[in-house]
Amino acid sequence: MFKTKRPIRVLSLFDGIGTGILVLRELGMNVEEYYASEIDSDAMIVTSVHHGDIVQQIGDITEITEEIISSILPIDLLLGASPCNDLSLANPERKGFNFGGTGILFFDFVRILEIIRKLQDKQRHLFWLFENVASMKLEFKKVISRFLKCPAAMWNSSYFSAQNRSRYFWGNIPGLFSTPSVSSYSHEKVMLDNFLTKKCKRQATVDQLRTVTTRTNSLRLGKDDKGFPIKMDGQDAGIWIPELERVFGFPSHYTDVQNLPSTRRQKLLGKAWSVTVLKNILKPLKQYFQCSAEEGKR
Amino acid sequence: MFKTKRPIRVLSLFDGIGTGILVLRELGMNVEEYYASEIDSDAMIVTSVHHGDIVQQIGDITEITEEIISSILPIDLLLGASPCNDLSLANPERKGFNFGGTGILFFDFVRILEIIRKLQDKQRHLFWLFENVASMKLEFKKVISRFLKCPAAMWNSSYFSAQNRSRYFWGNIPGLFSTPSVSSYSHEKVMLDNFLTKKCKRQATVDQLRTVTTRTNSLRLGKDDKGFPIKMDGQDAGIWIPELERVFGFPSHYTDVQNLPSTRRQKLLGKAWSVTVLKNILKPLKQYFQCSAEEGKR
Repeated sequence: MFKTKRPIRVLSLFDGIGTGILVLRELGMNVEEYYASEIDSDAMIVTSVHHGDIVQQIGDITEITEEIISSILPIDLLLGASPCNDLSLANPERKGFNFGGTGILFFDFVRILEIIRKLQDKQRHLFWLFENVASMKLEFKKVISRFLKCPAAMWNSSYFSAQNRSRYFWGNIPGLFSTPSVSSYSHEKVMLDNFLTKKCKRQATVDQLRTVTTRTNSLRLGKDDKGFPIKMDGQDAGIWIPELERVFGFPSHYTDVQNLPSTRRQKLLGKAWSVTVLKNILKPLKQYFQCSAEEGKR
Repeated sequence: MFKTKRPIRVLSLFDGIGTGILVLRELGMNVEEYYASEIDSDAMIVTSVHHGDIVQQIGDITEITEEIISSILPIDLLLGASPCNDLSLANPERKGFNFGGTGILFFDFVRILEIIRKLQDKQRHLFWLFENVASMKLEFKKVISRFLKCPAAMWNSSYFSAQNRSRYFWGNIPGLFSTPSVSSYSHEKVMLDNFLTKKCKRQATVDQLRTVTTRTNSLRLGKDDKGFPIKMDGQDAGIWIPELERVFGFPSHYTDVQNLPSTRRQKLLGKAWSVTVLKNILKPLKQYFQCSAEEGKR
């Protein structure tokens, strides 16, 4: 005795390049509304090119009021991955949660989560998911867990793709804490070699990329950033953006919009979720919401 | 009583980004061998990414000897579009056919055409096609016609696509001199608006682009290059490279390889044939050579 399933209604904070809507569509889920908060205009154009009017931008998270939230309710899924640059150990000048940095934006996620809980009909279940970098100080992790009232689950995109990208996830998506073990993934598929441009004598010198960030050097290897992950015709070579897009799980050329230089495209990707990880986390939602007959395919 | 049709064997001089092989494959023709002469490494990588080992690079045209030609014979189709920068009226400092410029490379096309004619079995028909810019001095055109022993046919990509790109063609492809009239093309399909990125509120301010060259300013409008061909959300905007690729008839993102900046991608396109024009010119060859059952599709 099941009720008819509804299409899902989503609010995605720190939406970036529309990874949330991409994943939901690739899972074949019917999306009734997808509201996004993002302030980077290049990221918004990437989203617009691929998803158009399905994504409704509602502006800067710090300016999202109770009035705005009440005008978009009900929401079934709240997504958010606030900037990690002031929390990550990779940044020696990180501000943590201090005023003036981006770490503090985490509290805006909490604020909006609470607004939805307060305003929304209690009969409507709210799924939510928050992501941030795994390489953060234990005290930062504790703060986040305290405010979100749950522990963190650690997922690494290396389980599914050729990038070492450890991320903490907080939320109430079924199965979130059943993280896959390293031994459970197919080692073959996650080798960098499988993501390189065919037909061009490009060969990976490593199994996987290290974590790609907004720093160009994150695409290099070793402590001194002097190594190259690829040989092309026997010469040292860097990764090409369409290859990097595939490593993240995006379709090739996803960020080839508005004549963005490759450095800018890398930055957009460096801030993004791993598509494959998000897909594995959100997949269980398919049993609660309306889906198309067939799973969305590329 | 027809003989069995053979797959075609091609030599493409000044091959650029592999437009010749792209067109033949899109026409559904079976290509037995495709030899290319090109020296721009970025262009060669674009070709390699899309066509791989089908294209065999044989190096700088000035170093192609009788020995090299005899090793690749027989050839059914010789293609060539030598650099136009020293012949075009658009370049006030053009060197014409003088030594030290690129205009002189036309004579290498003639040289190789003659070598093939001399060495190849006379029973094997050689189709050939040479292209250059239409905006050249009459005396240059006369020189080319005198050496190639035929008049020039003028084709403009504006017949088929949203770019004004007048080019002279010399050759012996059936139908080459039956150039379409302006009134014969469908005005609707060739409007710039149809090539813009959907979903992004991009609107053309003109029907067609002017001739795209290697100069960034060729993407602007007007004598002073101050106009913009597009409005995006009501603001002046330039064309995006994937749009420009479509205007030329290439698949979107064709030049998104090796992290090339958009200026470099534009230069590769600015030197290229219009895919749609070349397709219309070469289409009659389908009746002489082996083709796949179905015309190649993207």
